[in-house]
Amino acid sequence: MLDAEAALARAQARLEIIPAAAAETITAAAASGASGGIDAADVARRARGSGNPVVPLVADLRGLAGAAGEHVHRGATSQDIADTGAMLVAARARRVVLAHLDRALDALAGTAARYRDTPMAARTLGRQALPTTFGAKAANWLLGCLEARERLAAVALPVQLGGAAGTLDAYGGRAFDLVAAFAEETGLDAPLLPWHTRRTPVADLASALAATAGALGKIATDVWLLAQSEVGEVAEAAGPGRGGSSSMPHKRNPALSALVRSAALQVPAYAQVVLAAQAAPLERPAGEWHAEWQPLRECLRLTGGAAETAAELVCGLEVSADRMRANLGGLLDVLGDDPGTGAAAALADRALDAYRRSRA
Amino acid sequence: MLDAEAALARAQARLEIIPAAAAETITAAAASGASGGIDAADVARRARGSGNPVVPLVADLRGLAGAAGEHVHRGATSQDIADTGAMLVAARARRVVLAHLDRALDALAGTAARYRDTPMAARTLGRQALPTTFGAKAANWLLGCLEARERLAAVALPVQLGGAAGTLDAYGGRAFDLVAAFAEETGLDAPLLPWHTRRTPVADLASALAATAGALGKIATDVWLLAQSEVGEVAEAAGPGRGGSSSMPHKRNPALSALVRSAALQVPAYAQVVLAAQAAPLERPAGEWHAEWQPLRECLRLTGGAAETAAELVCGLEVSADRMRANLGGLLDVLGDDPGTGAAAALADRALDAYRRSRA
Amino acid sequence: MLDAEAALARAQARLEIIPAAAAETITAAAASGASGGIDAADVARRARGSGNPVVPLVADLRGLAGAAGEHVHRGATSQDIADTGAMLVAARARRVVLAHLDRALDALAGTAARYRDTPMAARTLGRQALPTTFGAKAANWLLGCLEARERLAAVALPVQLGGAAGTLDAYGGRAFDLVAAFAEETGLDAPLLPWHTRRTPVADLASALAATAGALGKIATDVWLLAQSEVGEVAEAAGPGRGGSSSMPHKRNPALSALVRSAALQVPAYAQVVLAAQAAPLERPAGEWHAEWQPLRECLRLTGGAAETAAELVCGLEVSADRMRANLGGLLDVLGDDPGTGAAAALADRALDAYRRSRA
Amino acid sequence: MLDAEAALARAQARLEIIPAAAAETITAAAASGASGGIDAADVARRARGSGNPVVPLVADLRGLAGAAGEHVHRGATSQDIADTGAMLVAARARRVVLAHLDRALDALAGTAARYRDTPMAARTLGRQALPTTFGAKAANWLLGCLEARERLAAVALPVQLGGAAGTLDAYGGRAFDLVAAFAEETGLDAPLLPWHTRRTPVADLASALAATAGALGKIATDVWLLAQSEVGEVAEAAGPGRGGSSSMPHKRNPALSALVRSAALQVPAYAQVVLAAQAAPLERPAGEWHAEWQPLRECLRLTGGAAETAAELVCGLEVSADRMRANLGGLLDVLGDDPGTGAAAALADRALDAYRRSRA
Repeated sequence: MLDAEAALARAQARLEIIPAAAAETITAAAASGASGGIDAADVARRARGSGNPVVPLVADLRGLAGAAGEHVHRGATSQDIADTGAMLVAARARRVVLAHLDRALDALAGTAARYRDTPMAARTLGRQALPTTFGAKAANWLLGCLEARERLAAVALPVQLGGAAGTLDAYGGRAFDLVAAFAEETGLDAPLLPWHTRRTPVADLASALAATAGALGKIATDVWLLAQSEVGEVAEAAGPGRGGSSSMPHKRNPALSALVRSAALQVPAYAQVVLAAQAAPLERPAGEWHAEWQPLRECLRLTGGAAETAAELVCGLEVSADRMRANLGGLLDVLGDDPGTGAAAALADRALDAYRRSRA
Repeated sequence: MLDAEAALARAQARLEIIPAAAAETITAAAASGASGGIDAADVARRARGSGNPVVPLVADLRGLAGAAGEHVHRGATSQDIADTGAMLVAARARRVVLAHLDRALDALAGTAARYRDTPMAARTLGRQALPTTFGAKAANWLLGCLEARERLAAVALPVQLGGAAGTLDAYGGRAFDLVAAFAEETGLDAPLLPWHTRRTPVADLASALAATAGALGKIATDVWLLAQSEVGEVAEAAGPGRGGSSSMPHKRNPALSALVRSAALQVPAYAQVVLAAQAAPLERPAGEWHAEWQPLRECLRLTGGAAETAAELVCGLEVSADRMRANLGGLLDVLGDDPGTGAAAALADRALDAYRRSRA
Repeated sequence: MLDAEAALARAQARLEIIPAAAAETITAAAASGASGGIDAADVARRARGSGNPVVPLVADLRGLAGAAGEHVHRGATSQDIADTGAMLVAARARRVVLAHLDRALDALAGTAARYRDTPMAARTLGRQALPTTFGAKAANWLLGCLEARERLAAVALPVQLGGAAGTLDAYGGRAFDLVAAFAEETGLDAPLLPWHTRRTPVADLASALAATAGALGKIATDVWLLAQSEVGEVAEAAGPGRGGSSSMPHKRNPALSALVRSAALQVPAYAQVVLAAQAAPLERPAGEWHAEWQPLRECLRLTGGAAETAAELVCGLEVSADRMRANLGGLLDVLGDDPGTGAAAALADRALDAYRRSRA
Repeated sequence: MLDAEAALARAQARLEIIPAAAAETITAAAASGASGGIDAADVARRARGSGNPVVPLVADLRGLAGAAGEHVHRGATSQDIADTGAMLVAARARRVVLAHLDRALDALAGTAARYRDTPMAARTLGRQALPTTFGAKAANWLLGCLEARERLAAVALPVQLGGAAGTLDAYGGRAFDLVAAFAEETGLDAPLLPWHTRRTPVADLASALAATAGALGKIATDVWLLAQSEVGEVAEAAGPGRGGSSSMPHKRNPALSALVRSAALQVPAYAQVVLAAQAAPLERPAGEWHAEWQPLRECLRLTGGAAETAAELVCGLEVSADRMRANLGGLLDVLGDDPGTGAAAALADRALDAYRRSRA
């Protein structure tokens, strides 16, 4: 939010709405506020009175900005700063999520290529069904993550600027120039209209994060099941402090899978709060907007954590082609003859093609 | 599902996997099954045994197809047919939803243009804040629906074909030609890979429907609040059987708004079930897949109903510019002087431009 | 809803608010309406105008009641009838759910007793951990269902009667006598106050159903996992039409488990809509109330279906003590010596005691 | 979790499983760990390896306990400590929530009594319907909170103790004595069985918290709507830092209502994650358990915050009987004659009776 206030001041200076020196001072004050000059816990406590943290934050920032303080938050409403701040957080978090996804994608592509022709049993409703390959399975993991990555990367993250009534009333004839300058100063997108109660950006972001958590959760679910004692076809990487149990030294738990799965089970519920908050009253709701804050943050945190953990999981995944073959052997005995793995290898190739195109 | 079986047979006939005459017979049998030859309730009852309706449906279709029956469901698994059937339902329902959205968009564009310069009070947390225009409000409604329409129209609805292990094992070297032909016969998209447990298509569809329900719910929420006795700035269209109360003849209820809002409050929860079901075990889950069916259907039904109802709502919306002006008068008295409506008219213009571009 | 109108008329006749003969005629008309005299689909279509089905239903019932029609719906509001109707549906559905739960409880008690001392591997995060007994596992299933049953049976299901403003204004000094008589005529509970927008009854019911679906889903999840090809310790009952696959005759799927699990994954989401609808505006909301109808119905249907299916599942469950012993053998080899099953048998005894006390 | 480990040690000392001196040392070490001797952030980081924080926490606690360290965590599994710790947090948080609810109940009782006969318009779907009293409205608020309070206070919060397999295998013949002693040492309830994957306690707690948030959200929703500029029948207490706007000095926002409503819109979604996690695999899930932690914490935090905020809201609520009368006047003009407020005053009396009985 401090970065949003500073960017707004700089944008206004570019349009000569406020003096350039004031914008510089405000930028410096915001930086100093962010590095300890403003007590976040104190802002949070004082936020209860106004129902949002911007009112006390602006007061503190004005204090730090001295004479330039009068130019802080010029023509803005609390939601302009809170929403823009949320988009800045989202943009930064998304960069991290995408980087982890890229690491996971690289590892998954390697897995799909390496095990392209490794036969194993496909399992439906927990029962061995017919042969497939581990490469075909990894191909679906890969494509799922690739689709999620593209969806997430495509989400628009716009600044919010509208003023108290969403009419940009304080900015006169150059309102849209100011929005564009504000977008440039923040590195965010420029929206067509203020979106105080047209919540497409947050709804779209939450959906894309839930899709991402789901794509990662699919992998973790499969790893958990393939790592069962009786199946034993994959294992999470061993190592000090990995998969340990507080009571059973002999156990090696799929701990990373559990963490990723726990995110995949939660994020959709948080996204749902954000999606339901779209039905937001008039020009600012008494609750629906406030209800978005925490779930949106948790969508980012949990999906980010899941992406990092999944990247670690797939990078270190141990695969036992022998065990796959042994388990498959039992199935083939039941089937009588080997129906083969059909187009499984071609499935891996198609997913790898899509991956390579996305990297080009 | 019957259409999916028939299209699969025709696609297989095109590739000479089954005789052309068999495909014709199966297509006729499917049509006859759909128009009463197969008892849906009986299929539903028998579905409990296998956990899905495809097993008994295939049995009945084979019965209707006579000698061609042996070519029914060739190389397919239950999920191929159920998923493709769901996508066919989705494609048909989406056409209806989009048509209703288009009607709503046209009406909203008319509203934004007509009331471009009509002043009214913006309200935040229920309190009159500053002046805006009804055109600016309608512009946000319009843009919200436009964004939702584009998102929904862009969702890929692919056929599902993979066979029991997702490897297309029964189709030999021409597996991908068959997928393409199957897509053509159904009018659906061709997927890169089977998506039995890579649930991007349903997750994406559910998200887009939740976004749509939310955009419509935003309008309904505003209409409900602006139609309050003490506000009285808009009213739903009057008429026989509209907005009546069983106990109070003097009342005119915003009944359409209530229905649209009820959809907007539900659809995100149904979408959430679909999103959470992405973490689906191995090649077919014991529950997660089954848990998608009903919520996905309800997402389609409720969003479709909400779109139709919202179109009716905005087409018939009665707007009282006088009451808007009177309510605003009280606010201006408090404010002392009139801050004006800022860029409100320009906001309406920008949304109308986007609308016209989308129609071009 | 017809039964609610009839019961209201009879209650009013008992208090001499309307003639006894009118109440008899209305009761007969309601019965005739319910058995085809009223076209439910037509009522549904006309319901769109008023936003609820009571307005057209009352019109039709009055038509059927002839001269007594003027006494139909006396002093009531639509929500009185819709809510009371919902509680009647809930009461009838609950009886069915409880009966299925009782069947399941009996079978679970038998399982816990029979396998009280049957050793097997406990599995945490999918990995064999230490020995337990199948009786201890069944004891937890049993106790979970018992707790859910008691919770569900304890939910109050009250009539709703308040009139348009929730003040019982049409009923003069004998308002609370009428509420009591209405409760008696329906067999429902008498509420302390009308609950038009104090939604404790539906919120409590939805929560209890979600708890029940969860307790059943726990069993189904375990059965699915223990029935895996590589584990093979339990199997669902075989038989014609049971667990069949449309593509793989060799497979026997845990189809009942999949159905129960699918309910357990859905019901909490539907309950959530009902819980969120508690924040309902003023004396009747424009959406929150309407948003309850479908999720509440689905909570009842899905939990009812899950209870019936779970009863069938546990009654027919095939248990392989040999396979349990064989799988455990591998674990004991890893552990080196046998730590025993601790208090596992006592756990079964404690759960069986609780079950017997509940049956006394 | 440290308190849980210390209580377990003391319980084991009481049964002479470990030396009394060791329990004292462990209790002191836990206290010292809680007051800074253990670095929570470091524990969190190391928790990723095992998938839960107990493994590193036990290591640190053993370090602090010196020679007594070997007696730390005797026979327990990570989940025993994490679940018991969660119940301790819940018990402490519940005390705070109940105290806030009691403050709110007292204020609501005062409101219901004071405005027992104050007429106002009842509003359905936002439209003035018929007269009611503010006392009747407050009576429903009061009864809703009272029901929620009783429900929350009745939730059992048991210790968890089962060991790695849930069989209490490490505790020999005195296992249940140890559970009872552990319950006494913590002040929590003694469970009939370990509940590692029979999640009744957390599901019940989450449901009760969602019911509480809903009862509070109902009040906040009404206050928001009655405080609208055009209605003006109530207002939140004024004062420095209360309801301020960052852009509009003339505005007084229902900020407390917005905060309470935002909790009521979120908590059901968090509760839903907990309810869905009941379908937990075998003796410990790879994800479902972990998915409970954060939503359960947020249910406690948000409901606690909502209770405190709601208490402040109702304690300071400003009521304008004049404005109620003026608004009602317009309705009575439409109605033609005054139907009166029916049993509204009696409704207030009934709710006050229930309140007094609960306080007796």
